[in-house]
Formats: sequence, C-alpha cells, structure tokens
Amino acid sequence: MGSLDTNPTAFSAFGDDASGFQPLNPDDVRSYLHKAVDFISDYYKSVESLPVLPDVKPGYLRNELRSAPPISSAPFDVTMKELRASVVPGMTHWASPNFFAFFPSTNSAAAIAGDLIASAMNTVGFTWQAAPAATEMEVLALDWLAQLLRLPSSFMNRTGAAGRGTGGGVILGTTSEAMLVTLVAARDAALRRSGSQGVSGLPRLAVYAADQTHSTFFKACRLAGFDPANIRSIPTGPETDYALDPARLLEVMQADVDAGLVPTYVCATVGTTSSNAVDPVGAIADVAAVFNAWVHVDAAYAGSACICPEFRHHLDGVERVDSISMSPHKWLLTCLDCTCLWVRDTHRLTDSLETNPEYLKNDASESGNVTDLKDMQVGVGRRFRGLKLWMVMRTYGSAKLQEHIRSDVAMAKMFEDAVRADDRFEVVVPRNFALVCFRIRPQGAMTEEDAEEVNRELMERLNRTGKAYLAHTAVGGKFVLRFAVGSSLQEERHVRSAWELIKKTTTEIMEEEM
Amino acid sequence: MGSLDTNPTAFSAFGDDASGFQPLNPDDVRSYLHKAVDFISDYYKSVESLPVLPDVKPGYLRNELRSAPPISSAPFDVTMKELRASVVPGMTHWASPNFFAFFPSTNSAAAIAGDLIASAMNTVGFTWQAAPAATEMEVLALDWLAQLLRLPSSFMNRTGAAGRGTGGGVILGTTSEAMLVTLVAARDAALRRSGSQGVSGLPRLAVYAADQTHSTFFKACRLAGFDPANIRSIPTGPETDYALDPARLLEVMQADVDAGLVPTYVCATVGTTSSNAVDPVGAIADVAAVFNAWVHVDAAYAGSACICPEFRHHLDGVERVDSISMSPHKWLLTCLDCTCLWVRDTHRLTDSLETNPEYLKNDASESGNVTDLKDMQVGVGRRFRGLKLWMVMRTYGSAKLQEHIRSDVAMAKMFEDAVRADDRFEVVVPRNFALVCFRIRPQGAMTEEDAEEVNRELMERLNRTGKAYLAHTAVGGKFVLRFAVGSSLQEERHVRSAWELIKKTTTEIMEEEM
Repeated sequence: MGSLDTNPTAFSAFGDDASGFQPLNPDDVRSYLHKAVDFISDYYKSVESLPVLPDVKPGYLRNELRSAPPISSAPFDVTMKELRASVVPGMTHWASPNFFAFFPSTNSAAAIAGDLIASAMNTVGFTWQAAPAATEMEVLALDWLAQLLRLPSSFMNRTGAAGRGTGGGVILGTTSEAMLVTLVAARDAALRRSGSQGVSGLPRLAVYAADQTHSTFFKACRLAGFDPANIRSIPTGPETDYALDPARLLEVMQADVDAGLVPTYVCATVGTTSSNAVDPVGAIADVAAVFNAWVHVDAAYAGSACICPEFRHHLDGVERVDSISMSPHKWLLTCLDCTCLWVRDTHRLTDSLETNPEYLKNDASESGNVTDLKDMQVGVGRRFRGLKLWMVMRTYGSAKLQEHIRSDVAMAKMFEDAVRADDRFEVVVPRNFALVCFRIRPQGAMTEEDAEEVNRELMERLNRTGKAYLAHTAVGGKFVLRFAVGSSLQEERHVRSAWELIKKTTTEIMEEEM
Repeated sequence: MGSLDTNPTAFSAFGDDASGFQPLNPDDVRSYLHKAVDFISDYYKSVESLPVLPDVKPGYLRNELRSAPPISSAPFDVTMKELRASVVPGMTHWASPNFFAFFPSTNSAAAIAGDLIASAMNTVGFTWQAAPAATEMEVLALDWLAQLLRLPSSFMNRTGAAGRGTGGGVILGTTSEAMLVTLVAARDAALRRSGSQGVSGLPRLAVYAADQTHSTFFKACRLAGFDPANIRSIPTGPETDYALDPARLLEVMQADVDAGLVPTYVCATVGTTSSNAVDPVGAIADVAAVFNAWVHVDAAYAGSACICPEFRHHLDGVERVDSISMSPHKWLLTCLDCTCLWVRDTHRLTDSLETNPEYLKNDASESGNVTDLKDMQVGVGRRFRGLKLWMVMRTYGSAKLQEHIRSDVAMAKMFEDAVRADDRFEVVVPRNFALVCFRIRPQGAMTEEDAEEVNRELMERLNRTGKAYLAHTAVGGKFVLRFAVGSSLQEERHVRSAWELIKKTTTEIMEEEM
C-alpha cells in the first residue's frame, strides 16, 4: 500500500471500468420518491371510487406481470405503470372510506412521513449503541403514549434523572409477538418456581383466556410450547356481554391446581376483535394473583380509545397486571407495523430473551444504563420503529388524537342509532367503541337458520357492489355483521351511504324472499 | 331513519360543530411527504460528513425533547426541526459510507419508494381476500427471487397454470422469526412422529447448529420450548474455517439417539455473522436425513450473493433441505424489514400455524386455491411486504443486482489485499464475501493478550474519530476486527480512506506502545 500515492490504480477494485450503479443516486432518490408521492396523492383522491373488494381470481397477478425477474433494468416509470395497471385493481382497499371490515388500519400524513424517513435512514437498532437516537426515541414514544393512557409509572422506562425502575416497553410488529414474548417470560418464570428440570415441567403449565380472545393468542401459546390440552378457552355468554367472568376464571384455575397443574398466564382483552367485549381487567388481575399467574392485557384496538378520559375506565386495574399491549397501527393513526408492549418488570422479559454475542458487546450495554431492545423481542434486527409514533403524537397532539377517536365513536353511534330505529334490524351486543355488531333480526316466519342465510346474503351482496366492505362474526351462535367505523378518509357521508345501501339491499332481499 | 331526507341533521354525528381533523388531508399528505423527501435528500448528502457513531450519553434525547406528549398540535415543521436538531445527532448512521460494522443494511431508491407506497396503502394482508394483490405480489416476488437464487422449483409457489405444489414462501420481519416458525413446525412433526401425548415428548427433542450460528437461533429454540440441555452448539475450528463439520454433526446426533433423544432440527448457516463461515449445506442435509430431522439454511446475509453464479455453489445441496431464509434487507438493496423464507412443504408450516377465526372465514380461503400468509408467520397482521422487494427486482433487474454484489466483493477484496500487503496485519479467516476479518497480528514481544489489547484499542480509536465504525468478533479465541463493505452510499474512496485511517492509527498505537 506504500505505492498508493504514486500509483493510485494499484488500490482499485474496478480500474476505470466501474460502471457505477448507484442504488441511492441522489437524482433517483428524489425522482422515485416524488413519483411515489404523486401516486399516493392520486390514490387517496381516487380510492373512494374504487371497488373496496376487488373482483379478481386467485393467480390473477401472475397472469398480468412477468413470471420471471427481468435481467435488465427498467425506468422507474415502468415499475409505477405496472403498479397502477395491475396491482391497484387487485387491492382490497383498506384506505377506502367505504371500508368497514375487520378493524380499520388508520393512518396519517405524519405517520407515513415518519415511516418514510425510517426507511431511508434504515438503522438497525438492536442495541442502544447501534442506534442511540432510535432506541431513545422508541423509549420516549412509549413513555409518552403511556402518559396518554394514564398507565401507572411502573410501566414506564423513566430513563433520566429519576433513574430506571424495572418497567419499560418495546415496539413490536404485532400483538401476537407481544403475547408470545410475555408467554415465554411467564413460562420460564413458572418453570423456575416449580423447580422444573429444563422444560420437564412444561406439560403441567396452564394458560387462560376467554373464548372471545383473538385466535392468535391460542396460536402463540402453542408456539411457546404450552400443551394444547392445558390451553383454556373459557366460555362466555350474553350475561357478561361476552366478557370473561372472573368467578368462572377462578373456578377453572382452582380446578387446574387441584389437578396438579400450574396456572401460568391469563390473557384479558379490552375490546375483542369479534364484538369489542371488554374483560374486567382488575377483577381478572385479582384472581390471577391468587395463583401467581402473569396477566397480560390485549388492548390492540380499543387501547387507543383509552387516551380519552371517558374510555379510560376500561383499563381500571391495569396497575395490577404484568403487561399490556396495544397497536397504534389499528386506531391511533400510525401505519403498520406498530404494536406497543409495556411490562412492569423488564427483567422478566430479558431473562428469557437476552442474547449476548461477541460482536454486539459494547461499553454502553455493559454499563447497564441503557435499554437494548433486541432483548425484549423475538428477533435481533429492528427498524427505527419509534419515529412514526413520536411524529404522530408530536404533530397532532393529544387533543387532536382524542378528537379523532371521538369522531369515529360518534359516527358509530350514529350508525347504531339508525340500526336501532329500523325494526328490521337489531344491535346484537352493546356498542363499546366504534364497532357496531348488528343483523337483520328474525322476523315473521324467519327461523334462526333463515336469519343466518339472509344476513350472509346481505353481506355478500354489499361486498359485491364494491361500494362497501363488511366482515362478519359469530356471537352467541348467531351470524352477525360487523360495521367498523374509522378508516382515516372516512366522513359521515360514507357511513350514511353505507347505511342507505344496507337498507336498500335488505329491502331487495326481503322482497325476493317473500 | 325515514326522516333522513327531510331532516338531515337527525342523521349527524356532529351537527355543525365538526372541526374536521383530517389525518390524511390531501395538502398535508403532499406537504409532509415532500418535506420528508427533502430531509432524506439532505441527509444522504450530508451523512458522509457526520460522525458514524454519535457522541451522546444514555438519556440524552429525553433531555432535548419534551418528556410529556403535547396537548396541542404543532406545524409539521416543528416536528422536522426537532428531528434534525435532536434525533440526527444521536443516530448511528447505518447509511453512512463510512459504516463498516455488523453487516450493512443496504438500500435503494426503488425500495424506499415501494415501502412508502406500502405505508400509504396500509393494507393488512392476513388472508388472500383481505389483500389479493398484496398476497400475490409477495408470492410473485418470492418466486422471482427463488429464480435468481436458482432454488429448486419445489420451493416455489407456482400458483397458476401448473397448479400448486407443496412449496411456498413468506416474507417475515426477521431471520429469527423464520427460524422460530420452522422450529415449531419441526417440533410438532417430531412430537407427532414420536407419539408424544401433547408436549410430553418435548424434553426429548434435540436441535443442532455450529457454535458460529447466530445467537438468535439458540434463543429461537428456547422460545419454541426446546430444552436448553438439548440445544447443541457444535464446536468448530480453523480446520474447517469455522464451518460445521458433518462428521462431527453425525457423531453428536447419533449419541443423542443412543441416549434416547429425538434429533429434530439442524440449522446450517451460509455466511455466519461472526466471520462469514459457510456450513456445507448438502453434506449436512445428508446427515440430517439419517435421523429425519428438519434442515434449515440461514443465508441471511450471504444468500444475496448467491444470485451471482460464482457464489451459487455455497447453496449446493439446498434441494435436500426443508427450508431456507435470507434477508434482502441485508444485502439486496431492500430496506428493513424483509426476510424471505421458503419451505418445501408449506403444509408442515400451516399445520402448526393456522388459525381460522369466524371473522376471517371467506370463500377464497375455503377453496384451497389461495395462500393465506397469516398461516406461515407468528402474527396475523402484516404490511404489504412484497411491494418493495418486487420494485427492486423490477426496476434494477438481475444484472444490476449482480453488479451491486460484485462491486462490494471487489471492494472487500481490495481491502483484503491491502491488509495482506502490510505485514503488521493478518487476515484471520479466508474472505468469502464482502466481510474481511483481520487484526494487528502479534509481532515482536507482543503476546496474544497484548494483541487483543492493541486491536481493541485500534477499534475504539477508529470509532471515536467518527470517520469509521467497525465492530469486532471473537474467532478461535482471538479478538478480531470485522470490516464489512457494502453500505449503499459507499464508494471505493471510502474504503481507501478507512484503510488509511487504520494504518495511521495503528502506527500511532504502535509508537505509543514502544
């Protein structure tokens, strides 16, 4: 290398032939991103008029696009043209104001901008040192949101002057991951407590949730190795509006103890996916405490509403649970992925999830003064996850976020009132948030079976129009339509139009039936 | 509702007071995103001159930003100002051309644009019906990439005219998740085969990997409930360049069988994180086949190189493994998150991961003609993950992608040659891809302990300059510097400058030592 100064080409990977492919060429970055922004603007303008649910057949896209990757590069306009021509027509438009299925994936200009910047910076924040600002931004965003939710300070990171407690949080991709990592922490703690040799005690551990709990909880239990025979799905009914009955939970847990099992984990849901039932958090925590079981609160959807004082009571008792998760990517204007998990004792998580390979060792980690977020999640790599959530809270402020929740709830209430005022319909369970569960009620000679058929027909006809998209559920054995308000482009007129369409279609079906 | 036409206000959630907070207001969307694009352009222009590793103390960000969320909204410029003033100075700049630590998180204009559009569309593609184009795009992108990697067609989805085989893939967030879901599938299959009642047989299952395997593998095993005592980390040494020795694997697996255990899963790595060792895929598959164990190939980093014919031999034998994963977010110009997993028999995954709640039931899923990607991952929700990967391949084409790999490898070779030409240094293991593992070699009176101290000092001084960031590893008990080439803004001159800095700093240290 001594020859470097006199003979530069000796230290050259390419000589003069370097063709210089620059994937982040400044002109390309600006031009591709501006084209993407134009696309997005057009898309938001036109999405209202697109069929919410597309009319495409399985395999359609392969017939439209090349089935093999191209060898040569193409102008970005070609890529964008194919996106417009072939991809958009096959989308189910979650961004459509006529989308009423599942839960809306709410979004905002600030969140998209934050996610864009995170994509461009492309940091990998596994340790504090690998991305100090990204780590601290995530911690800060979680503490801010915890304050909006009035979570007890025991869940906060409180890094800084006050020193660190044991509480803390992490942003994950999905609620399922939040369940999985807390299940594993609870599992390992229970194994240690029961003096298990390795995992020999695993077949004796038991976990609990209401039968209305998201199916992903039962899947997460299986992933973590719990015995399917010990995963309890506790029946609920109309007497509790499909919420978990603490007395019933106590009975089931006690029976397990009597049978030699070890109650390990209880999952309570605030706002079930099916019908928005709310399990009583405090009462469940009290029952679980008898058995020293971990209590997790899944508030994926309805947690966002709890930033409003009038909904906060749904979290009462949260100070006695071990962990809580909620997903701003559902109802807090933050695009996917963004699930926030808080735990009261991060050591219980990191005991199970910590890794310490040589190439990640660094002074900051060894000082114990920093959070290495890799030790609170399944994976190692992670995006700059806190940025978009912080940008949402920083830009809009809590007052606007509350307004957003209240606006959705008010529109849902408006829809509910309309349903109640038409005696062909019934609201099947009380509305708690912005989801209305309703159906054409059995009337005249209509049996329950007929009602299921008529309601299914109503849903299918509505969805075929392309002017609305609703999903269904089963509540108490009944086929029920779910009308979920809140898609971010939605206005009152869209809810109104959907209701008009529902009434008109119902009239048509009723007339045909007669 | 009969009054609707004559008295519109009766059907109104807000009356006239609607303040109309519009989180996706068209002007805001355009303006915020343009500001973000400007920020990104400026950032890429200036990042070269910023210290790669920031000089901030734990807790610094909380001292700069508000510790409580604001109530009122703020102009987006305020948010962007705080980003520039407080966040950027605390970043470890993975996008810097002077970043040589870990593996680079490569990126491209097409990938960022694709991710931006995915954020704006904000679809949730758990089932085919919930996002047909997003599902099919993901399947297509995986099949394209499988073709670039010349994976056997048994790993492809082949939806369309040829009908579906059992193969298929999914895009996940991390390699860890790819390991976890395949571990669970292998675990459940082994339990069924061994006639286990529930998970009673779990303490008898054993899993295998070289000691150079990423620590996240051993963590994933624990997450899936494998007994820590049966998670085998098989020693490697310089005689195989730290790759797994199949003969040794055979011995260990046979000994376990003799002891009554059930070999369940072997993880082979193509390009270890520590030193880029390559486990012999085919030979490992042959050994595992003796015991009917699942074989997974983790090619997170080096898999990208295998799109070039000259590197493809590292995957030889892949037609005999059960699954393979690689991460375009590492070395294929696709920003985080993007880990591709292919399996030869998707049913083995979905048997363990399928859920079927009422509200997700639909005709397409029930037809069996479509892929519901939720059944191949931990969670339910998922972004439009295939778009950015497809955009990268569509826009750049395979020739440019190969050029990108070759350019990085050539720069790494250039650096390696320089190290070899300076007799104060040694290359510790043969370079396979774009990572060079080197150190100041023990010389004169320098003991191995002195060498560790001197090399650690070198790394710390380099990193403190802000002009380069390197990480270290331990190979064969030696403290080794890792020089990973390939950050997407990197050019030959950056590698050259880093080498000059290394030489100069080494001279300074050596002179002080004397």
